[in-house]
Amino acid sequence: MWKPDRESKKPLYAQIADHLEQRISYGEFPPGSQLPSERKLAEQLGVNRSTVILAFSELRSMGIIEGKSGSGTRVTMTKWGATPKHTPNWKRYAEGGNFLPNLPFMRRIREALSGAPALIDFASGELSGDLAPSEEISNLMSRHQYTAYLGYDHPQGYIPLRQVLVPYLNKYRQIQTTESSILITSGSQQSLYLITQCLLSPGDAVAIEDPSYCYSLPMFQSAGLRLFRLPVDRDGACPEDLRALYRRHRIKMVFLNPNYQNPTGAVLGMERRKRLLELASELGLPVVEDDPFSLTSYGGMPPAPLKAMDAAGSVLYIGSFSKIAASGLRVGWMVAPNAIVERLADARQQMDFGLSVIPQQVAAQFLKSDYFEPHLDRLRMQLQFKRDLLIAALKRELTGLISFTVPEGGLHLWCKLVPQVHDGKLLEEAIRRGVVFVPGSVYGSDSGYVRFTFARARAEDIDAGISRFAEALRALLEVPSP
Amino acid sequence: MWKPDRESKKPLYAQIADHLEQRISYGEFPPGSQLPSERKLAEQLGVNRSTVILAFSELRSMGIIEGKSGSGTRVTMTKWGATPKHTPNWKRYAEGGNFLPNLPFMRRIREALSGAPALIDFASGELSGDLAPSEEISNLMSRHQYTAYLGYDHPQGYIPLRQVLVPYLNKYRQIQTTESSILITSGSQQSLYLITQCLLSPGDAVAIEDPSYCYSLPMFQSAGLRLFRLPVDRDGACPEDLRALYRRHRIKMVFLNPNYQNPTGAVLGMERRKRLLELASELGLPVVEDDPFSLTSYGGMPPAPLKAMDAAGSVLYIGSFSKIAASGLRVGWMVAPNAIVERLADARQQMDFGLSVIPQQVAAQFLKSDYFEPHLDRLRMQLQFKRDLLIAALKRELTGLISFTVPEGGLHLWCKLVPQVHDGKLLEEAIRRGVVFVPGSVYGSDSGYVRFTFARARAEDIDAGISRFAEALRALLEVPSP
Ligand SMILES: Cc1ncc(COP(=O)(O)O)c(C=O)c1O
Ligand SMILES: Cc1ncc(COP(=O)(O)O)c(C=O)c1O
Repeated sequence: MWKPDRESKKPLYAQIADHLEQRISYGEFPPGSQLPSERKLAEQLGVNRSTVILAFSELRSMGIIEGKSGSGTRVTMTKWGATPKHTPNWKRYAEGGNFLPNLPFMRRIREALSGAPALIDFASGELSGDLAPSEEISNLMSRHQYTAYLGYDHPQGYIPLRQVLVPYLNKYRQIQTTESSILITSGSQQSLYLITQCLLSPGDAVAIEDPSYCYSLPMFQSAGLRLFRLPVDRDGACPEDLRALYRRHRIKMVFLNPNYQNPTGAVLGMERRKRLLELASELGLPVVEDDPFSLTSYGGMPPAPLKAMDAAGSVLYIGSFSKIAASGLRVGWMVAPNAIVERLADARQQMDFGLSVIPQQVAAQFLKSDYFEPHLDRLRMQLQFKRDLLIAALKRELTGLISFTVPEGGLHLWCKLVPQVHDGKLLEEAIRRGVVFVPGSVYGSDSGYVRFTFARARAEDIDAGISRFAEALRALLEVPSP
Repeated sequence: MWKPDRESKKPLYAQIADHLEQRISYGEFPPGSQLPSERKLAEQLGVNRSTVILAFSELRSMGIIEGKSGSGTRVTMTKWGATPKHTPNWKRYAEGGNFLPNLPFMRRIREALSGAPALIDFASGELSGDLAPSEEISNLMSRHQYTAYLGYDHPQGYIPLRQVLVPYLNKYRQIQTTESSILITSGSQQSLYLITQCLLSPGDAVAIEDPSYCYSLPMFQSAGLRLFRLPVDRDGACPEDLRALYRRHRIKMVFLNPNYQNPTGAVLGMERRKRLLELASELGLPVVEDDPFSLTSYGGMPPAPLKAMDAAGSVLYIGSFSKIAASGLRVGWMVAPNAIVERLADARQQMDFGLSVIPQQVAAQFLKSDYFEPHLDRLRMQLQFKRDLLIAALKRELTGLISFTVPEGGLHLWCKLVPQVHDGKLLEEAIRRGVVFVPGSVYGSDSGYVRFTFARARAEDIDAGISRFAEALRALLEVPSP
């Protein structure tokens, strides 16, 4: 992103005014359209709000923009020889369609991070650069000749990748399958998107865990689904709750994240797995098993997935490289009955014509290489190390103010806040102090929880991040609640 | 894909029966589900239909499948200790959602190609392996250190790629823009998908060219849009037709492919470009300019895009690497006003969390490299050469039976068939003889047209392909129409 040049003799506000004038003249902000708020621009450009206010007043005096400082600022119509009807009402178009915008908290976090990359990041659910196998991947890329024909890919995904996933799934997840049952997707995310868009219809009732990663995705509401909650305890969701929901709402599908659940870290108990599968097959109810974290397990193998015990063929299984290698690869997979794989592959063609072949080649090489096992070992150790750093910092800074269960795998720690504080205010206080986390209400449960991702921040920043968070929390506690 | 081993002592039918039994036991075909038809399986496995019939009867005698040969074959319920309610009704789920399946002709062509890769391919709208810069890309990949942090990408796409697209768009397409107005997508396809899903609502009327690539995409119907046709002549679509459609149907958006239009090859005349833009700004009507072919122009620069003359900010511009480098890269871009870029980037996050970083790095390197210009020169020459081969073959084999206009860019030749033949029958006759093309009706116009892509087949196969096509056509002409 463009930033003003602090070494230049030209004042910051004038640089910003010129930059905005150019973007306006190129049509990024057509006549009549709204400019970003002063706060947002200041954050994006890394300057004080007063500098943006100066730049705006410069543009206002040139007749390029109009509207008062503070309330929305718009590009003028007249200056450009255009009358109101001349430009499409882009704002109205942007509000069209069925697609709900991302949750405000998630947008706010993204905005804060893109404006100030030095924020200590307990929010992004991914690995830090040093945990990702970047060097291994770079080596593989320079060693192998990627001269395969780069035409449109097979609708189910790159065949050699599907071929190496067969023994991978067998070895690490005890799942028996063939390449023809596998669909490669852009991470788990696209698998979830395809399921909600193509297998369910508006008005259908689905059950999801509470709290759950799924609540952070407006995708479920965008598809018009009615969401019903399965409370998660230490052993995950309870089969009896599912039966009750099914009776009352004719649930059409269940979404579970059985291992190191996001956000709670819970692991679905073996007894519950068995009863859930029995129930699913008794009711003919499909189960979506979202399983991105299993291989991060710090202490040996996690329980077998539902899919490995799925005699009745009730389970759609989803995996991903995001949490064990790199989220920027965008390689995930689904294992599903033929009718489903064909349907989803067909629909995906229409959305994006499939994934790029190159990251699929890289992923296949990486899985087959001698790098994979040592990488996993190192990843697990380092995740556990970071988890322990986080826990030590929390104990030092916040004893009595928070409580949590120690997770045995995954990237996240789910904390209950003892005092009652306002989610949004806590987030703003934290951002002001240079740290971000995800407010618990994003995951559907009542507020009063916080998700800390310990995988993304650098180990040496974890302490400072928690100190800042503790300051933010204490600042709110000092103010008497209204 | 698994194929039976023709060297093995085990008979083909027994290998196929074992293979199917395994896939059934793994849950690819759960109890009660339907197996692919005998014809389809035979095509996939590259065997005679009678071999599949034998394999099926073996499985039938083992009680694994049931149903008569010819009518649908299903996996039995009883053998697996399951009663009908035990498995989700996957077929019903596969029919859910709003998403229409791909067109039967497109599925048929894909099926035929995946069963018999040696078919001469005049159907796939892409470059052949030797036209793609595979070696250049392979060199770039081994030369550069791809150790950038592979985290979730910026919602608008990889910043260095957007940065090199700014001078690219300026140099080759006379478009002035900044990186903040660019959204990177999975080819043009995902740009179109995002526009239809997120900016338009069910029931909205849109205008598209007739014939048009867009008719081959059920995506427009899936979004519930009402489609109205702008007939295409040698100079593209006519502004007056758009005005008439707008009056009658309150058109909300226009989709145009102004340069070397797919399928006709037409180039929108300069006068019409100007009038279209005036009309769009008079009506406040957004224009989607889909421009994947411009840089293939065989004889110098094609006309400036609408976007370059778009003073009123009416145009959403879409470009892609698919037709000038490699479709398997899956890198395309949209240039649009800020409100639209932000909205679509936000929605795309929910669908797939963005593109893989690696192909975007590769695309950026390629654009910046000294390989790009020479590659373009070579590509244009070779496309023209293949076009001429195709035309020579058509003249030799089919004079009097077809007519066409010679395209000056792009990958396709659009032919009118003089005799009246049945689209689907012609396609089957052609597949039987080892060649595929796309029936014209896929693009929305009346039948009686054929699209030949000359870019995908190897130059040395073009002659033989057209001979086979001519045989197929003649075979139909000999049969008196009913
Ligand atoms: C439970 C769960 N499922 C799916 C995803 C999507 O990840 P990706 O698409 O990168 O695989 C995430 C990411 O945070 C997750 O936590
Ligand atoms: C006119 C047009 N637009 C868009 C596309 C989609 O191509 P891609 O998504 O590979 O860029 C095509 C492909 O054939 C096309 O012909």
